[in-house]
Amino acid sequence: MNNTEYNPSIYDQDLDRNQANFQPLTPLVFLERAATVFPQRIAIIHGHFQLNYHDFYHRCRLLASALAKQGIGRGDTVSVMLANTPAMLEAHYAVPMCGAVLHSINTRLDAAAIAQQLTHAETKVLITDTAFAEIIRPAIAQSNPALMVIDYADPLLFTVDKCAGERLGSEEYEAFMATGDSDYVWQMPRDEWDAITVNYTSGTTGDPKGVVYHHRGAALLAQGNALTAAIAKHAVYLWTLPMFHCNGWCFPWTMAAVSGTQVCLREVRADAIWSAIVSHKVTHLCGAPVVMSTLLDTPQEQRPKLIETVEFFTAAAPPPERVLSEMAAAGFNVTHLYGLTEVYGPAVVNDWQPQWSLLPEVEQATLKARQGVRYHALEQLDVVDPDTMQPVARDGKTLGEVMFRGNVVMKGYLKNAAATEQAFRDGWFHSGDLAVIYPDGYIQLKDRSKDIIISGGENISSIEIEEALYKHDQILAAAVVAMPHEKWGETPCAFVELAEGCSVTQEELITWCKSQLAAYKVPRYFVFEAIAKTSTGKVQKTLLRQKAAELADAL
Amino acid sequence: MNNTEYNPSIYDQDLDRNQANFQPLTPLVFLERAATVFPQRIAIIHGHFQLNYHDFYHRCRLLASALAKQGIGRGDTVSVMLANTPAMLEAHYAVPMCGAVLHSINTRLDAAAIAQQLTHAETKVLITDTAFAEIIRPAIAQSNPALMVIDYADPLLFTVDKCAGERLGSEEYEAFMATGDSDYVWQMPRDEWDAITVNYTSGTTGDPKGVVYHHRGAALLAQGNALTAAIAKHAVYLWTLPMFHCNGWCFPWTMAAVSGTQVCLREVRADAIWSAIVSHKVTHLCGAPVVMSTLLDTPQEQRPKLIETVEFFTAAAPPPERVLSEMAAAGFNVTHLYGLTEVYGPAVVNDWQPQWSLLPEVEQATLKARQGVRYHALEQLDVVDPDTMQPVARDGKTLGEVMFRGNVVMKGYLKNAAATEQAFRDGWFHSGDLAVIYPDGYIQLKDRSKDIIISGGENISSIEIEEALYKHDQILAAAVVAMPHEKWGETPCAFVELAEGCSVTQEELITWCKSQLAAYKVPRYFVFEAIAKTSTGKVQKTLLRQKAAELADAL
Repeated sequence: MNNTEYNPSIYDQDLDRNQANFQPLTPLVFLERAATVFPQRIAIIHGHFQLNYHDFYHRCRLLASALAKQGIGRGDTVSVMLANTPAMLEAHYAVPMCGAVLHSINTRLDAAAIAQQLTHAETKVLITDTAFAEIIRPAIAQSNPALMVIDYADPLLFTVDKCAGERLGSEEYEAFMATGDSDYVWQMPRDEWDAITVNYTSGTTGDPKGVVYHHRGAALLAQGNALTAAIAKHAVYLWTLPMFHCNGWCFPWTMAAVSGTQVCLREVRADAIWSAIVSHKVTHLCGAPVVMSTLLDTPQEQRPKLIETVEFFTAAAPPPERVLSEMAAAGFNVTHLYGLTEVYGPAVVNDWQPQWSLLPEVEQATLKARQGVRYHALEQLDVVDPDTMQPVARDGKTLGEVMFRGNVVMKGYLKNAAATEQAFRDGWFHSGDLAVIYPDGYIQLKDRSKDIIISGGENISSIEIEEALYKHDQILAAAVVAMPHEKWGETPCAFVELAEGCSVTQEELITWCKSQLAAYKVPRYFVFEAIAKTSTGKVQKTLLRQKAAELADAL
Repeated sequence: MNNTEYNPSIYDQDLDRNQANFQPLTPLVFLERAATVFPQRIAIIHGHFQLNYHDFYHRCRLLASALAKQGIGRGDTVSVMLANTPAMLEAHYAVPMCGAVLHSINTRLDAAAIAQQLTHAETKVLITDTAFAEIIRPAIAQSNPALMVIDYADPLLFTVDKCAGERLGSEEYEAFMATGDSDYVWQMPRDEWDAITVNYTSGTTGDPKGVVYHHRGAALLAQGNALTAAIAKHAVYLWTLPMFHCNGWCFPWTMAAVSGTQVCLREVRADAIWSAIVSHKVTHLCGAPVVMSTLLDTPQEQRPKLIETVEFFTAAAPPPERVLSEMAAAGFNVTHLYGLTEVYGPAVVNDWQPQWSLLPEVEQATLKARQGVRYHALEQLDVVDPDTMQPVARDGKTLGEVMFRGNVVMKGYLKNAAATEQAFRDGWFHSGDLAVIYPDGYIQLKDRSKDIIISGGENISSIEIEEALYKHDQILAAAVVAMPHEKWGETPCAFVELAEGCSVTQEELITWCKSQLAAYKVPRYFVFEAIAKTSTGKVQKTLLRQKAAELADAL
C-alpha cells in the first residue's frame, strides 16, 4: 500500500489534537487500570509471597517517586541486574513512571560486558540483586565507581537460608522505596515516541548494541500478545522466559492489560515449573526450546496431569516434532513465535490454521517449524532480496533476508547512528536472518546471514544440515558452523550432543547426512560434546566458530 | 498523571521516526492480514451467500479503485444508505482504502434529515440500497441532484422475489466495482489522525453534528473490543446492531483483526437471530435491550438450546434483572457497555468481578446496571463537577458529568468549531451524561444533562423514577420526561408500556412510586402507550417531551 497525498479537506479544519482526544500510548496505563478496577486481584506471586494490584501499583509509584527524588527523570537510564522477581516487574513500571529508561542486564554476562553496557547507557542508578554481587562489584569498578547502587535482597533466598550475596550499595531496595511519596503523581511520557527501555543485543560480532524501545511500541506489542493469543481476563502467566530478554517479550505489560497474575521464578527447574503450573493454575508461559526439554525431562509418572491446556509460546529455534508431540501429550499447546530484540521480541507468529490439526503429526511438525506471519502489531513482514529490495518469489525455496516494517520496530540503536542507519536502510529493518517464504505467506528461517557457510562458492544453510542431524534418533542437539578450509574457503563443521547412553561414529553420521543432503553440504568434521548455549537458550555459534577455527588450525 | 518535561537526552539523538519503525495506525491492515493469512476463511455470511477473506479483500480493493477512478480521494465523503449487508462491510474498508471518509446514514431517518447530512458532509458519492429508494430519492433532490449515486441491490431481497425498490443512480454496485483494477495499490492514511468516518448524532436539540473518527482511534477501539472481551481467533459475530450506529461500535474492524466471520442480518427478527446463532455457531453479538427482548419473546419451547455460551454486549439502557436472568437461562452472557457516538461507541465496560457471580441474582442485576469502568483504549474516565472541573466524591451519590479523555475520543464535529471547542473545554470531552461514581470506581448514569427534571428547584433524575417503575412487575417499559408546570417549573411525566394482558391505574402507580421514591419525585401524570424508540433502541425523549408539553397545555 501507499500513503495518500496531502490535500487539505474539510476533515483537516478545526479538528486538531488536544488533551481530550489525544494521549500518548503507553503500557503504564494498563497497571493504573488494573489497580483501579481489580485492586484485590493477585498481580504477582513469588514463592509464598503475593502482591495484589493495589499494592503493586502503590509500590511502583513509591519507587518512581523515590527515583524522582534522586533527580532521575526523562531520558535517564536506570539499570537493573535482576532475576525474574517482583522487583523486576516493579522496575518495568516504576522506572518509566518517573520518565526514565529501563535497562535490564542479562544476568549471565561477565563483568566486563556489564561494565561496557553501564558506561554506554550512562546509567544513573543500578538496582541489583544481592545474589549477583560477585559479578556486579567488578562491573561497577570498571564503569562508574560513584554509581548509585540499590541492593535488592530476594526474600525467597533468605528464607531458604541460602547465601544471597553481599550488599554493594548505599541503599537497600525496600528502604529506598520507602523514601518515595505515596501520593506521587506519576509521569505520562511527553510523547509516545519517548524511550521506555533499552536492551543490549548479545551481538556475535563487535560491540553490543543498545536497542531502544518506545512507549508506543511497548503498548502495541503488549496488546498484540493478548490479541494474538486471545489471552483472557485474569490469565495466569509463569515466568520461565528471562525478563531481561526483550523485556520478557513485553509480557510484564500484557499481563497488566488483562489484569492477570504473574508467577515469578528465579530458576528454570522442572519441579518448580510443574509445581507452579498446578498450584497457580497457570494458563500461559513462554520459553526457549530448552524449557520444553526441561519440562519433558520429568518422567511421565512424576508429572502432574494438567486439566486445562496450557499455552506455551516458544522461539529461538523451531520445536522438533518429538518435542511437539510430547508437549501435546503432556497438556501443552505450543505456538512457535519469532522475532529479534529489535522488534520487541516476538513480531512473527506461526498462526495455526485449524485444518492443519487434521494432518499427520510429522506434517504438523513441519508446518509448525515455520516461523509464520506478522503479528497484528507489526505492519509489514517480507523476505526480500537485499540487493534489489524486491520481495523474493513465494516458492519456499528462494532465499532472502527477513525484513520488518511497523510500529513494533525499535527507535534505533543508542548512540550509534551508523548502525541505526544501516539497519533501517531503504525503509525496512534488515534482520540479518535469511529465510524463504512459502506460497501461503509463511516464512521459514534458513540461517543468519553470518551463519551461512560459503563452500566453494556455494551457499550452505547451517540450519538445513542441523535439521538433517536432528532427524537422527540418537542426536539430542546439533549445531553447524563454518570451518575455514584451504581449498573450499569454508566447510561445515557439526557439533553434536548425543542422547544419553547412545554412541555413534563420525562415519555413521556422514553416511546419514549423505542420505539426507546434497554431497557438498555434508559435514566432514564432527565434534561430540554438550553444545554451549546462551542464557536465552540460543546456541553460541560464535564460540563454536572459534572452536572450529582452532580445530582447522590443528588439522 | 502528568506529562514529563522535555529535556533532551541521549534517547532523543538519531532515533527518529522513519518508514521502517513508524506506520500510521489503521484498521485497514487487519483485513490485509486476514486475507493474507486466512484467505479461505469465511469472512461474511449473508443468507446463503458467503465470502471468504481473499474475495472480501479483493472486492474492497476493486471498490476502492473504482472510487479512485472517479476522482475520490483523501478527505472526500462517500455516503452509504445500507442495511447490515456485505456492501456495508465492504464500504468500511473500501472507502478509507482510497483515502475517503465513510458516512453511514441511519436508515430510519426521513428525507429532510438525510438531505441535511449529505449537504453538510459535502458527499461526493452515495451508495444506496434499492430498498431505501423511496426515502433517498427526495433526499437527493433536496441536497445535490447531480450527486453520483450507486445502487446496491441486496441479492437476498431479489431471491425472495420481494420488491427491492427502484434504481436511482447511473451505476449499479457490482458493475461499478467491476470498473476497479484488481491490482490497485490501496492507500495507507497519510497520518493516523486522518479521518476514516463521520457519524451524525441524532442530537435531540439543534442541527445534527458530524462526529469525525480517525484511523488511530478506529484501530485502537477495534483492538479494544477484542481485548475487553478476549475475542478469540475465528470468532463468529452476528449483526443485530445497526452498522450505521458508531460504525457498529467498530466491530466491522474488530472481526477482521481476529480473522472472524461476520453474519449479516437485514432485520432484527427473533427467528432469524436464533437460526443464525445455531447455524453459524455465533459466539458474539451486540445490541440494544430491544434485541434481548426480541430474543426472549420467542417462547422457551421454540428456542434452540445453545451448547456454548454466547457473549451479548448491550448498551443504551441498563439491562433489567428479569431480562438478565432470562438471558442467562437462555445461554447468553450479557455484558453492559456504555459510550456515545463521540467515543466510537463503547468506551466504558461493566467489567465483571468474578466474585460478583456468587451474589444473589437481584444484587448481580444491580451491579450489572452500572455502566462501569474505562475500556483499555480510553485513557481516562471520570465523573466531574463541570463548574469546578474537580472529580466528584466516589460515594455513589454525588452527581457529576461523565467526562472522557483519550485516543478513542473523536477528532471533533465536522465544520463546527464552536461545538467542538465547547465539547472539549478544559481538556476533557464533556458527555452531557450525569452520573455518580462508586467507591470501587464504577460509574452509573443517572441522566442526560438535558433529561434532568428541575422541579421546585430540586433536580430529579428521570432514570431514578424509571428504575422504580421498572420494578413494578406489570410494567414492560417506562420513560419519564419533564412536563412544564406553572407552579414547580417542571414536573415528571411518566410514559408506561404495560405487559400483555395487564392493567393498572394511574393511582396504583402513584402509590407504587411513593413506596419507592421521595414524594417530590413521584410523577403526577402517567401516559399509557407503546414507547417511541429510535432505530437504535433509544427512547425518543424529545418526542415524549413534546407530548408532555401538549398534555400540560391541555390540562
